[in-house]
Amino acid sequence: MAYATVTRLYSDQPLGGGISVPLDDAQTHYLRNVLRLGAGARIALFNGADGEWWAEIENLRKNGGAARPVEQRRKPRAEPDLWLVFAPLKRARIDYLVEKATELGVSALLPVITERTIVERLNLDRLRAHAREAAEQTERLTLPEIRDPMPLGALLADWPADRRLLACVESGAAPPVAEQLAREQPGKWAALVGPEGGFADSELDAIGKLPFVCAVSLGPRVLRADTAAISALSLLQAFLGDWRAGRGA
Amino acid sequence: MAYATVTRLYSDQPLGGGISVPLDDAQTHYLRNVLRLGAGARIALFNGADGEWWAEIENLRKNGGAARPVEQRRKPRAEPDLWLVFAPLKRARIDYLVEKATELGVSALLPVITERTIVERLNLDRLRAHAREAAEQTERLTLPEIRDPMPLGALLADWPADRRLLACVESGAAPPVAEQLAREQPGKWAALVGPEGGFADSELDAIGKLPFVCAVSLGPRVLRADTAAISALSLLQAFLGDWRAGRGA
Repeated sequence: MAYATVTRLYSDQPLGGGISVPLDDAQTHYLRNVLRLGAGARIALFNGADGEWWAEIENLRKNGGAARPVEQRRKPRAEPDLWLVFAPLKRARIDYLVEKATELGVSALLPVITERTIVERLNLDRLRAHAREAAEQTERLTLPEIRDPMPLGALLADWPADRRLLACVESGAAPPVAEQLAREQPGKWAALVGPEGGFADSELDAIGKLPFVCAVSLGPRVLRADTAAISALSLLQAFLGDWRAGRGA
Repeated sequence: MAYATVTRLYSDQPLGGGISVPLDDAQTHYLRNVLRLGAGARIALFNGADGEWWAEIENLRKNGGAARPVEQRRKPRAEPDLWLVFAPLKRARIDYLVEKATELGVSALLPVITERTIVERLNLDRLRAHAREAAEQTERLTLPEIRDPMPLGALLADWPADRRLLACVESGAAPPVAEQLAREQPGKWAALVGPEGGFADSELDAIGKLPFVCAVSLGPRVLRADTAAISALSLLQAFLGDWRAGRGA
């Protein structure tokens, strides 16, 4: 677990041996004033295109620092193609949900406005900062994309034909999730969870009729939306995603 | 979903038609000052022994109120026998974990001190209040038991022979969780997650040798302890627990 003590920072700059990679103000501040590091200290920089590199800090000036990648730590690799479609929640819960979804390997977060969605204003910059921090801590190479909110109906009307949607519904008719997922194939997937007040009946009817939807039940208790999202993503990863290969993969 | 708007309160008093059930100070304060209810308003009272009852508020006096059960809403029923063994976390995360574990049907929460556990002092009263609130919102009839913390070694040395333990470990050797759970049988289960710093190697060795342990991997990313707990409980419920019957059960 020495692993967990490496300082990993996401960089949107090209990474490669001997390049001087600029660090943004927040990164520079964090390295200098929080971690109290100086020139020569070793961190890791990563992104999806170039993988992860050990890098030496060159300088941490007030107007922006720089680090020099010295050795590749991990090669770029395919990460899951898994979406989460969810109705915005109150602040603490949505921050938590973004963190958890990032840890669970989600590639895109799609906020949707449903009939019973209460929280409509979203601070996307704050959510992106949470996702970045979670990616840095969870050993991912990529950041999840966080899309602009849109109405659920519009999203489903324009849904890509090659992506299945696991809809978590609170109705007696849906089959148990494990029974259903055991019959499904890996590929492009998304999970859909409703707002705290649940989907409206008209929404459930419409969702149930879509050919790409796989509606399931998450058991007899009422789950909060954030809990349902974490459960659904865990189950998708375990049954059909990259948890099938174990940690050594 | 009119369901979700019922005010459900856990009561440790006997519940039955025509009995006057005392409400404690916190319940009385909540009903009177937060919900602004008065005599005659209808709430639901529940516990594991007597099920759930519609009840009419009799009075909400400052020195304690009372409500009268009028009709049984749900009969007592078996709830899952599922434990969560976890190392204490920082305040916001442990509160969240207790809430989520309660929603996921855990019957007992067992905090353990491991070699790398950092937070050792636990406010059990606060955790019990969180569990109660989560039980009220999630349509459970019981509250999960929250045990006093004990050393992991002592807990495992005295482990009940008839209960299996799903140990979530971050090592390459453990099989993928879905592969393993597909081979297991329903019954008494527990999930074990380590502290934020992970288990020590000596702890992992000891855990791996225990006959009741089923060690699994939760995929290639580093999960926070609270995420691992929610994932493990979701998988146990979906594969072996009461999520197998669907919501209508």
